[in-house]
Amino acid sequence: MTTAHHHSIHPLDDALALTSAAPGQYEGRTTPAYWNMVGPFGGVTAATLLQAVLQHPDLLGEPLSLTVNYAGALTQGPFTLQATPVRTNRSTQHWTLSVLQPDAEGAPVVTTTATVVTAARRETWGAADTPMPSVPAPAQCKAIPPAFPVEWLRRYEMRPVAGSLPAQWDGGGESSLSQLWMRDAPARPLDFCALAAMADIFFPRVWLRRARQVPAGTVSITVYFHAGSALLAQTGAGYLLGQARAQEFRNGFFDQTAQLWNEAGALLATSHQIVYYKE
Amino acid sequence: MTTAHHHSIHPLDDALALTSAAPGQYEGRTTPAYWNMVGPFGGVTAATLLQAVLQHPDLLGEPLSLTVNYAGALTQGPFTLQATPVRTNRSTQHWTLSVLQPDAEGAPVVTTTATVVTAARRETWGAADTPMPSVPAPAQCKAIPPAFPVEWLRRYEMRPVAGSLPAQWDGGGESSLSQLWMRDAPARPLDFCALAAMADIFFPRVWLRRARQVPAGTVSITVYFHAGSALLAQTGAGYLLGQARAQEFRNGFFDQTAQLWNEAGALLATSHQIVYYKE
Repeated sequence: MTTAHHHSIHPLDDALALTSAAPGQYEGRTTPAYWNMVGPFGGVTAATLLQAVLQHPDLLGEPLSLTVNYAGALTQGPFTLQATPVRTNRSTQHWTLSVLQPDAEGAPVVTTTATVVTAARRETWGAADTPMPSVPAPAQCKAIPPAFPVEWLRRYEMRPVAGSLPAQWDGGGESSLSQLWMRDAPARPLDFCALAAMADIFFPRVWLRRARQVPAGTVSITVYFHAGSALLAQTGAGYLLGQARAQEFRNGFFDQTAQLWNEAGALLATSHQIVYYKE
Repeated sequence: MTTAHHHSIHPLDDALALTSAAPGQYEGRTTPAYWNMVGPFGGVTAATLLQAVLQHPDLLGEPLSLTVNYAGALTQGPFTLQATPVRTNRSTQHWTLSVLQPDAEGAPVVTTTATVVTAARRETWGAADTPMPSVPAPAQCKAIPPAFPVEWLRRYEMRPVAGSLPAQWDGGGESSLSQLWMRDAPARPLDFCALAAMADIFFPRVWLRRARQVPAGTVSITVYFHAGSALLAQTGAGYLLGQARAQEFRNGFFDQTAQLWNEAGALLATSHQIVYYKE
């Protein structure tokens, strides 16, 4: 069953649609709604991998950790996704995943690899050690139009707080820190897949730090989920505050650390990525 | 050839010794020198996975990213390690890895999964955006004896700067930040494997933040390598400054972000992990 042409479906749910002929074997396809420059938005690929785990009949618990390695750009069209629970413990489950597409000769080629850990959450002592920065409320921050003519940017409402794209590409950047309010467009109740996608929403830190728009692309991203499904349900279709900064730019690669809080100030996820850049 | 009983070998090189009967298929074994409470020190397992990639005949470039998922404790003795280059691009190579040991019936069980990205580094613009904190030099910081009777702690020289283990386990912790100078004991010229291991050296943040010693163990760790082999060679057998802090403790899991600089202030690696804790 395909739901691609059902008009009432949210574009994210459309992009996440997978069919499964056997446990752990899925068929999906890229959608124009999340197209980036040379492939789908990496966040939606991460979300699709997580979706496969969440649909698997043997799933234990909820997402704790997700690492996605972007080995090659997905081309437009169908793909195969494999998700295998390689070890199930009492309270954690370890998954390995891959996305494949046929090459010019029809042979399957790996475009993406991933690992996921799911876990049963328990009531324990807890502490929030990275308070949400004090920033103006979403309504006080102006929503910006897409900064580039790529389709996926239209799938998010972005209200920058600090560290927007440079107004001038003059090589005069000083900081790599961005903060913005964000949510799906149209608004959609938050779930693990949407959260995983939003962890990859930030434009390349090298553009901000250098005020220069060089080619750049995520090589590997990791997302740690601090929220369980109850907290996601509380968050609903509200805004998230995203914060991202780089730690080091060297020899063609930089890293990015990111935090995502809900409007009530709960840290829902932290994320890290290593990104290729040119020149 | 086994080198386990050759007395002049460094214990880390001994632990990293792998034999290979076929490309990507390795045999190794745990060593008493890096034993933790219920298995080997997780850092040495991470280092061993990386070592398999570095020994592989098809290797392209140098380590860029390493994610290790600890699915189950390794038991004392031999293990099998599989390392597969699933995709090789012009300047990056993507690896999937696993460690297996036989269960009670002799069937292979996955104890560890991992992904690695290696890359050819190029000269580019660069910037250090996380300067090394201003701290006393290693010689001014007192080396501490192992805080617990576990063998692996004796394989590292640790000179805490801030955030040592609580003197009193009284539940009165306030911060999760630790800084310490560290190096292999005995000293050993730094390489990628030693750096990967040291990224996991920090005791559980929950012990510091709560001043309470609850059971805890790493579930997944990611290391991003900012240094190439030339910078590692410059670092030699000098000390590294390690810094670690948590961002969130909730429902039985916390995260840790870490940075490792050399004495000259170059950021060699950044690392992240998600850690199980009890109560």
